[in-house]
Amino acid sequence: MKDTTVTLGHGSGGRQSAELVSQLLDSFRKRNIGPELEDAALLPGGYAMTLDGFTVSPRRFPGGDIGHLCVCGCANDLAVRGASPDFLGISLVLEEGLSSEEAASYMESAASTCARLGMTLAAGDTKVVPSGAVDGMIITGCAFGRIRTARTLSMTGIHEGDTLLVTTSIGRHGAAIASARFDLPVEGLLSDCAPLWPALSPLLHLEGLRCMRDCTRGGLGTVLCEWAEATGLHFSLDEDAIPVGFQVQSLCDVLGFDPLYMACEGCAALAVAPSDADEALRILRQSPLCADAAVIGRVSSAEPKGMVSMKTSIGGERLVDMPWGEILPRIC
Amino acid sequence: MKDTTVTLGHGSGGRQSAELVSQLLDSFRKRNIGPELEDAALLPGGYAMTLDGFTVSPRRFPGGDIGHLCVCGCANDLAVRGASPDFLGISLVLEEGLSSEEAASYMESAASTCARLGMTLAAGDTKVVPSGAVDGMIITGCAFGRIRTARTLSMTGIHEGDTLLVTTSIGRHGAAIASARFDLPVEGLLSDCAPLWPALSPLLHLEGLRCMRDCTRGGLGTVLCEWAEATGLHFSLDEDAIPVGFQVQSLCDVLGFDPLYMACEGCAALAVAPSDADEALRILRQSPLCADAAVIGRVSSAEPKGMVSMKTSIGGERLVDMPWGEILPRIC
Repeated sequence: MKDTTVTLGHGSGGRQSAELVSQLLDSFRKRNIGPELEDAALLPGGYAMTLDGFTVSPRRFPGGDIGHLCVCGCANDLAVRGASPDFLGISLVLEEGLSSEEAASYMESAASTCARLGMTLAAGDTKVVPSGAVDGMIITGCAFGRIRTARTLSMTGIHEGDTLLVTTSIGRHGAAIASARFDLPVEGLLSDCAPLWPALSPLLHLEGLRCMRDCTRGGLGTVLCEWAEATGLHFSLDEDAIPVGFQVQSLCDVLGFDPLYMACEGCAALAVAPSDADEALRILRQSPLCADAAVIGRVSSAEPKGMVSMKTSIGGERLVDMPWGEILPRIC
Repeated sequence: MKDTTVTLGHGSGGRQSAELVSQLLDSFRKRNIGPELEDAALLPGGYAMTLDGFTVSPRRFPGGDIGHLCVCGCANDLAVRGASPDFLGISLVLEEGLSSEEAASYMESAASTCARLGMTLAAGDTKVVPSGAVDGMIITGCAFGRIRTARTLSMTGIHEGDTLLVTTSIGRHGAAIASARFDLPVEGLLSDCAPLWPALSPLLHLEGLRCMRDCTRGGLGTVLCEWAEATGLHFSLDEDAIPVGFQVQSLCDVLGFDPLYMACEGCAALAVAPSDADEALRILRQSPLCADAAVIGRVSSAEPKGMVSMKTSIGGERLVDMPWGEILPRIC
């Protein structure tokens, strides 16, 4: 890694993030005690664990707040690995001078979402730092849950011929944050921030379910690029099939963003055997969160291997690469 | 809670912290999904989990750094509940402009400590925030381990008549941070930051082992006050029996601090049935970390109940209360 100064691009979830993370994990990897790069780790005893830090700004945004976001983010990382959201831990770093009522209001959001999911707060930690040492607050959540599927859901399970699905329209979280940050209100635009377990758990009995990933930082595009690189297969997408709401598209047009890389917080990408794709779509659409679920492409052994291509709306074809740099820091 | 602005005192680990935490947990408690207030949560299936945020300043201090501290802090929270440190998660929030080599050096410390403990990094997360949104970096760790004792180690197990022990001399972490922060070098003063599992695990077979707690923020004094309040019993201490190194005592004398409230990061308080106290002491002293382990007091049903008293070196007796306000922010 040539650049030795951490930049916002290193937090984007894209290619620079991967480079920084690789440098940070090197000490663990060389001792053979490093993690795999999945959303949640599978532990002995049938548990999965995950943790995630949340620095979103503003802390309250159209469709949610940092407390709700923390629970959804952690629970969704478990859900996509087939684990139920059973136990949560929350670590708060608060800036001196913050209103304790404001902090408590985020805990109310978090508790409400936990209660809906049947999730228990098992552990917590609160630190206060002097004014200026953190901007308001940071929440880090960790979650533990029991794995509810006999098959391991993982990138390594993705096969040639698999069908690619997305559970809902993309980019709504990133767009909602951009709308709030740049004071560009868009009527009806809300973050998709929501827990996915109720929508995804009915899929777990499908033999052909290979891999799921929630599309957070870096959006759907980054998830699919990671899958393509990890599997060495070719992922082909159909731009017209990818659901993008008109509010998200409008905001992206104004700001020059690509919806494919806009963050989601209640949207997953799925790779499914073609024989189970229709059934997966039918099950997903029974959830109100996934009414817009769609088949968006397929996995093949075509060239270029390890890459993602997209048939565009105007009939062309382009490669989809991981984003470079950062378009919008502090979205989650 | 009358004060609605978060102050540094709310992060002290003392009485104000307890008030803030109570306010923050209220949303979970009223839904019956709130945590018990122990170092680590016991989960079904024989596992324990914990999480902890680290904001220490300076990030490198005499005897350790923030990476080593994170692993020790998390692993020790498991150890005092009788769980082995099996899996770690690390969440980093990095400030734009930080040196990636510096961040990687803390990961090297963390990995080295993990390897010594047989702990695997299972999950990670890295966020980058704009310059000024965090002072350098914050690490949050979560840990997950198998419970290695058939009996639950908990405050509720503390009985009248129990003997109180401390595993080593107190206050060394807080003193080392104060020494670095105030540029008051004290020869030979190092943080006690160390993993306690190797020293504590041989105690787990003792029938009379009731409760263990690592003395972090708020120090030994705060731990014992919490135990006294939670059990409604009286805790009496003998000041002369509490091991305090001369470097810690000297620094406390200069700065006007009480070693009883100075943070430790490799020191635990224990409540043990009197019949097992000698054996516990013998086992502890076999560990190089616990050569100074000592019996420091006992639990009784004397008045005032729910409180801690201390026979002082000059022959008097005083009540030991939880600290109020913050003497030294960002020690961990």
